[in-house]
Formats: sequence, C-alpha cells, structure tokens
Amino acid sequence: LYCLTYGLSSPDPRQREALIKLEASMQLGGQIVLTDAEQRLDALLFKMKKEEMMRADFPPAMHFFKARALIGASPIFRLLQKMPKGGALHVHDFAMTSVEWLVKNATYRPHCYMCLTASQSVRFIFSSQQPKALPQCSPWTLLENLRAKVVNVTELDNSIMSNLTIFTDQDPETVYPSQDEIWTTFEQAFLALLGLVTYAPVFRDYYYQGLTEFHTDNVMYLELRALLPEIYELDGSTHDTAWTLKTYQHVTRQFITEHPDFFGTRIIFTVHRAVNTSVLTRTVEEAMKLQRDFPDIMAGFDLVGREDSGKPLWYFKDVLSLPVERGVTLPFFFHAGETDLEGTEVDQNMLDALLLNTSRIGHGFALLRHPVAKGLSRKKGVALEVCPISNQVMMLVKDLRNHPAAALMLENHPLVISSDDPAMFGSSGLSYDFYEAFVGFGGIRSTLGSLKELAINSIRYSSLTPKQQQTALALWQRRWDKFVSENAV
Amino acid sequence: LYCLTYGLSSPDPRQREALIKLEASMQLGGQIVLTDAEQRLDALLFKMKKEEMMRADFPPAMHFFKARALIGASPIFRLLQKMPKGGALHVHDFAMTSVEWLVKNATYRPHCYMCLTASQSVRFIFSSQQPKALPQCSPWTLLENLRAKVVNVTELDNSIMSNLTIFTDQDPETVYPSQDEIWTTFEQAFLALLGLVTYAPVFRDYYYQGLTEFHTDNVMYLELRALLPEIYELDGSTHDTAWTLKTYQHVTRQFITEHPDFFGTRIIFTVHRAVNTSVLTRTVEEAMKLQRDFPDIMAGFDLVGREDSGKPLWYFKDVLSLPVERGVTLPFFFHAGETDLEGTEVDQNMLDALLLNTSRIGHGFALLRHPVAKGLSRKKGVALEVCPISNQVMMLVKDLRNHPAAALMLENHPLVISSDDPAMFGSSGLSYDFYEAFVGFGGIRSTLGSLKELAINSIRYSSLTPKQQQTALALWQRRWDKFVSENAV
Ligand SMILES: [Zn+2]
Ligand SMILES: [Zn+2]
Repeated sequence: LYCLTYGLSSPDPRQREALIKLEASMQLGGQIVLTDAEQRLDALLFKMKKEEMMRADFPPAMHFFKARALIGASPIFRLLQKMPKGGALHVHDFAMTSVEWLVKNATYRPHCYMCLTASQSVRFIFSSQQPKALPQCSPWTLLENLRAKVVNVTELDNSIMSNLTIFTDQDPETVYPSQDEIWTTFEQAFLALLGLVTYAPVFRDYYYQGLTEFHTDNVMYLELRALLPEIYELDGSTHDTAWTLKTYQHVTRQFITEHPDFFGTRIIFTVHRAVNTSVLTRTVEEAMKLQRDFPDIMAGFDLVGREDSGKPLWYFKDVLSLPVERGVTLPFFFHAGETDLEGTEVDQNMLDALLLNTSRIGHGFALLRHPVAKGLSRKKGVALEVCPISNQVMMLVKDLRNHPAAALMLENHPLVISSDDPAMFGSSGLSYDFYEAFVGFGGIRSTLGSLKELAINSIRYSSLTPKQQQTALALWQRRWDKFVSENAV
Repeated sequence: LYCLTYGLSSPDPRQREALIKLEASMQLGGQIVLTDAEQRLDALLFKMKKEEMMRADFPPAMHFFKARALIGASPIFRLLQKMPKGGALHVHDFAMTSVEWLVKNATYRPHCYMCLTASQSVRFIFSSQQPKALPQCSPWTLLENLRAKVVNVTELDNSIMSNLTIFTDQDPETVYPSQDEIWTTFEQAFLALLGLVTYAPVFRDYYYQGLTEFHTDNVMYLELRALLPEIYELDGSTHDTAWTLKTYQHVTRQFITEHPDFFGTRIIFTVHRAVNTSVLTRTVEEAMKLQRDFPDIMAGFDLVGREDSGKPLWYFKDVLSLPVERGVTLPFFFHAGETDLEGTEVDQNMLDALLLNTSRIGHGFALLRHPVAKGLSRKKGVALEVCPISNQVMMLVKDLRNHPAAALMLENHPLVISSDDPAMFGSSGLSYDFYEAFVGFGGIRSTLGSLKELAINSIRYSSLTPKQQQTALALWQRRWDKFVSENAV
C-alpha cells in the first residue's frame, strides 16, 4: 500500500480509502472484528462522540477539576461507567477510596483525634487515651468534642475533606501555580490521611469501600500499589507487613464472596524513592520474602514519589539487581517517565526500568521522547500504565488531546488505562480516565474496538498467570456481551 | 543492540551506555560529527541549557506573550540570534515585518486615512482625496489631522498598534478564551493592516523592512507565502498579480545588492481556503501561468486560513489535480494538520496533501496522530514546517515541551523550524522559534548538531534547485564557521 503512484496523476480515491483503512487498522483495537450488536453500539458511540466534539467547552481540553461536572453529565461517560473495563493496574493504596467516605465514616468513629500543623494541614490518630502531641502540631483534639463545639459541622467536615485531597473548586491554575506546589499539597494530603487509614478497623473498611467503588464502576480486578505501612490498634500496638498483606487478602476474599463477579486484587509492594540505599536494600529483601511467602497476592515491587525530586532508578541499580543475582523472583512495576524534564538523569528511568526487566511501566509519559526505550517496550510487550487525569492534574499536559498516548494508541503500543490516585484528583474508579482516553486522546477514530482492546489489555498485561487470565477473560467476556446487548440500539 | 540479555543478570552499564548513544544518534542532527570548535560551543550550550531548565519560570512552558521578555534575556537566545539559521520556509507576506514599523513608519506617511469599524477594529487607506466611506465603518479621518488633535499621540499609536497584532500585554488566556476568539482577532488584525500594506510605496518598503528584520536575525533565505493581492496607488489605480510578483523580485534583488550575504526569496502563491471551487479554479490557473512566467521567484501554491473552519483539501481535489492532469508544473506547499480536531475530515488534510504530491507540509501538528501519513512523509522526504510559537499562540499546545515535534526531532523526521506570522505573535525573525525548538521540545539532549541540521534542513527541503542549494549551503557554511569560531570558548 505504500507503493503509491501519486505525482503522476490525480489522486485515486480508492487508494486514499485504502490508506485511511490501513491507518484505522493499525490503531489499538483496530484488528478487532465487531459483532452486529457491537457495530450498532459503536455507531451510537460515534454519533455521541461527534456531538461531544462540537461543544465549545470540550471536557478533555479543560482541567479535570473544571471538567468533572461536564463529564459526569456526558452520555458517553454514562455508557463507560456501565462498561466492564477489566482491571485497574495502576492505583495507589490510600487514594483509591473517596475522601467523602473518609470524612463521613472514618472521622466519625469514636476516639478520633485531630491536630493542626504549622502549615495548616491536619493530622489524625485514633487512641484510647489522650495521645502525645506531635512536634509542629497543635495539641490533639477529640473530633467528637470539636464537632459538639462548632456551630457549622458541615463547614468543619468540608474543611477536613479539603485537607485530604488536592481537588479544589477554585481555579486550579491559581491554587497550583507550578508542579512544586501541587506535589507539596499532594504529599501533605497523604500525610493528613495516613493517621486515619492506618488505624486497623479503618484500614479494613477503607479498602473494602475502595473495592466497592471500583466494583460499582465495573472494574473487576485491581493491582494495588501498596506501601504496606505499620497498621495500629486503639491501644497503640502495631502489626507487621505480613499482617497487612494478609488483611488485604482476607478482605479481598470476603469481598469476592459477596461479589462473585469481582476477580481479585494483587499487591505491588511500594516504597518511597526518597529512601537511602540501605533502607532500600532491607525493603527489597522484605519484598523478596513476601513474594515467596504470599505468591498469590504479591505481584511485585515498585518505587513511588515524585521522580523529578528523587534519585533516578539507575542510582539504585545494584540494590534492584539483588533478586536477579540471587535467582529470586521479584517482578518490577516501575513508575518511570512521569516527567517533563526531557533529557535529565530521571528522564532515563524508562530505559533503566526496561534494563531492570520491569513487567510494566507506570505512566511512561515521556516514552515518545525516547525512541529506543519505546522500541524496547513494544518489542518486549512491556505495557504502559497510562493515567490521563493524573498527568493533567500533576501538570504534565494541559489539553489531554496532546497526551502522548494519543500517538501510542494509534500505533497500538501496549498500554492500559488507569486512574493512579482517583480520590486525590476528585475522581473515582476508572471511568473518568476511560472517558479522557476515549474522547480526549482517542479522538473521533477510536471505536468500541479500542475500548474492548483496552479492557482486554488490562487482563493480558496484568500479573495474573496465563490460566488466571483465561478465567478472568471469560468472566469479563460474559459481562461484556451483556453490556453490549443491553446498550446496543 | 536490541538483542538484550536482560532479565538474566543485573543490567550491564556498557549496554546501557550503548543504548543511550544509539538514541542520541537517531535524533535530528545525531549523525553530525562536530569539529573541535563546535564541540566547545556545544559544551557551552549544554551548560547554558541546563541552567535554563532549572528555572522555576521555564520559558517554553509559558505562553509566549509572557515568556518573550525572559527569552529575550536568555544567553541561549542571544547565541541563536547570532547563529546563521539558513532559511525561513513558512512565513506569511503580511506578518513578516514588525507592527511597530507599520505604525511608526507607514501610518506617518501623508494621505493616510483611518476609520473605525463597528467591531472596534480599524481600517486604513491612502488616498489623494477624501475616500468613500466603507460600509460598517466610521467616516475616514486623515491620521495627520487626528494626531494633531489628540492629547496623547503615543497612546493613539499604541492603540493602532494593538489593532494590527494579536499580541497583548494582558493575560492571553483571559483575552482569548478559545481558538474561535483568537482566530477572529487574527483575521481582524489582518484586515486592519491590509489597507496599509497594499499601498504600493508601503508594500515595497514593508517587504524591504521585513527582509531587513530576517537578515538582521541571520536568516539568509525566505520562502514567502504571499496572497499577491491588488496593490493600489494614491490615485486609486491598481496593479495586477504579475506586477506584485515582479515587485517582490525587484526589491529582493535590490536587497541582495545591498546585502550580498542574503541569498533570496521565493514566493508561494496563496489563496484563502474559504473560496469556492470556481474561484479556486481561476486561481490555480493563474498560479500555473505565474509558475511558467516567473519560474525563478515562483516556488508554488498553497491554501491559507483556518483549517478547522474551511473545506478539507479533498473537497478541492479535482481543482488541485488540474496541473498534474495538464502536465504542468505547480509545486504544492499545503498547510495541513494545523488542528486538534482529531479524526475529522480536516484532520485528513495531511494524507491528502501527500496524495496531491505536496513538496512540504505546513505545520503538520497532527502528524503524530497519523502513522500512515507520518510514514509517507518520512519515506518521501516531505518535510514539516514546524512553527512552535504559532501553534502555542493559536492554542494547539500550551507547554511547548509537549509539542509533537519533540518526538519527531528525536526520530529525525524531516522538518524545518519556521515562524509563520511573527509580527502577529509579537515575535520577529526566526530566533524565538529556534529557541522554543532547541530549549523547549529539543530538551537537554538536542545539541549544536541539531541546530546545524535544522539550518541545513532549511536549505535541503527548500524549493531551490540542487545547484542553488549547493551555492546556498556553501554561503551558509562560511557564515556558520565564522559563527562557531567567534563563539566557541
Ligand atoms: Zn502512581
Ligand atoms: Zn501559515
């Protein structure tokens, strides 16, 4: 088809048609043959998307904080909510559940203390007796007492809520003039909610509620990046990492019992990249042990935190080579390329993740600027976990039509869509990100076939065994067929 | 090099080094071997760029209107100004010369009348007698009289100036909330200056001044997209298209006589894409005639105006096939892909430009979203004319690090850098756009080799004959060597 005769005569419409078809067939999902019912649903989606693209206020071009209400009202979004999306492979433990639940549920439990830090953030602790004051924090106040005293409890609750997320009703570009400010707020919000979610009873319920939210959003499987921090009880006693991992396993089993169409969760153990080499060495050794002891729930290992301000992966290459040197299995799922600092050491993280034999790449926002790493990722089938809303909110790209995944989807680069920290971004589940991917960088040419392939990708590129993938795919296919038959007109 | 042994052992630093080198060699300019002096200059540029990238207010991430002063003060920019950049292949006739010159020079000539339209824009005419009033415009006022009457002439001149450009000191995102507004203002500014620049004496001097500005910015060659409109004299008589073309030729020759290191200008005859088929047919026929009669100065033909609101190229395919059907030479230089409406008919313009055998693609902003068109463009050596500031100001991309040319440069896709409508954007010459390309989407990895290749590309992908290209390259090389020896430390 590339052998064109052009230049010698006027262009041939059949040749043009063939080239357009060729391009369509090259895209993610371009090889999928749709059934009659799927074709009808696809036609409906095409019509809806065309209307959506005519709007002056096109949601993917806007900041998600401003676009959220518009997306919520979009008929495409409503369909995407109902669509079985497969798995969410890049979600962080303490940003999976809505902040509203945290405030309305967790902070209303007895024995919940709060204090105010010097930088106007909050901290929480559950304790059977008055806890010892934190440095740089006001004395602990029992929330129950505080709520009894204040005139407007809703106002107090809203103020607490705004401390647990980076979402804001105000103009995001004014509130967060640069990446530095938004990362600082992000880390403060994380510290604020840590005291809530590491209290054992809340920890369990928070995770169960998170599963509920993803399940309600028609996500059937999760790979959760989890810090596995010390979990504490009311008397101040704490549990070890294995307990935390087992708790994830137990709560997941309980959830599956109550929701047999949920397939499960696997854990990617994570540590902050700010640690030093000796702490990382101990953590990698612990990860290898957990991987050996809990092969069912442990998927592997990753480093988290802002790449731009952390050490590059290569700095840790000796520690990260420990598993392979000892002949021990520890799959990696490295965050890499969540940066716009093109050409710096950190910008090399994608190549280094590949050299360290990563199973997937978290984000890979900068991959398009690395043709060699891109070639390796494609050749080895190392999928990117693309998180559109996260990349926009964390200020890597403003108009999501310019997200690099637009080009990657059109080349059918291995990738999945995920939501990273939905509760931090005022999002939830996976549908908002699917909307941005499908309507934003998918453009008018992405089809129901693209959506189907994205869902299938989320199983194909998961850490599940081939046999588990088969089971999960069969479960997904039944739900998919139901979705199509219920929505095709 | 792609045959990696990874996964079996810890990553090999030599292999990593080799892959990083491979990637560097794949980029635009990656094959260029630098001389010792060039290497020293490259090291200096690298150091300067590293410092620039550490800044909180990184200019390529900001709107050009806000970044202009910062860029002006950048030592990299100062170097780029001095650098012989070769040719500017995508510049429009009436946006090549600074608006300040228009106001301070053109509007101060005798017989200059101005009127105010209903939408608060201005119109101009030179006339030996009181001209007939325009519909929807105030009566014509002689500017000389108006200036004698007003208290603050500077204020009046500034107000006139602001009507002739879309540049603004105010917050651009507030002034231009969407592409519709900015395109409307763009078209109004064009109509405002049309009466000035189509007056024969101003027409000549405007073009001469434009050449001066590009030459001062160390640009040695231009391909000018020119509407070749009717040019008028003080008595209202007008000249035909051939006269206008010959005037370009004469003024260019005069300029070269006075500046022997300037190589020349060639004209790409353009018409607005809003015309209907019969007007376009007449225009294409005229273009074929001009191409035959003035082969030295005529480079070819193009359609201009906003793609999103115009007919797609394919709509005009029969008319645009006339030259090839008649066996007549008329090279095309189509604007295509200056859009973010991914997947619409207009978004197919790049493929259609290629099918119509275009010599280059103006912008090609959307090319990355068209793998088949991208493959054809690369295979046939059809270069993109990348205009970074234009794309940012016209709201296709906010942070220039996310410009699609970032990826294209890293793959050494055929491309040149140009400035489109510098006077409209408050820019001038070519250096501001080179700055955005080199510091913005070039990233830390683009080198002096990239800059050299960009300059060479501007000759290699020009409409000059191979022999002319040789002469131009030799002329450029002498100036380049001088630039390197003067600036290498
Ligand atoms: Zn993440
Ligand atoms: Zn243009």
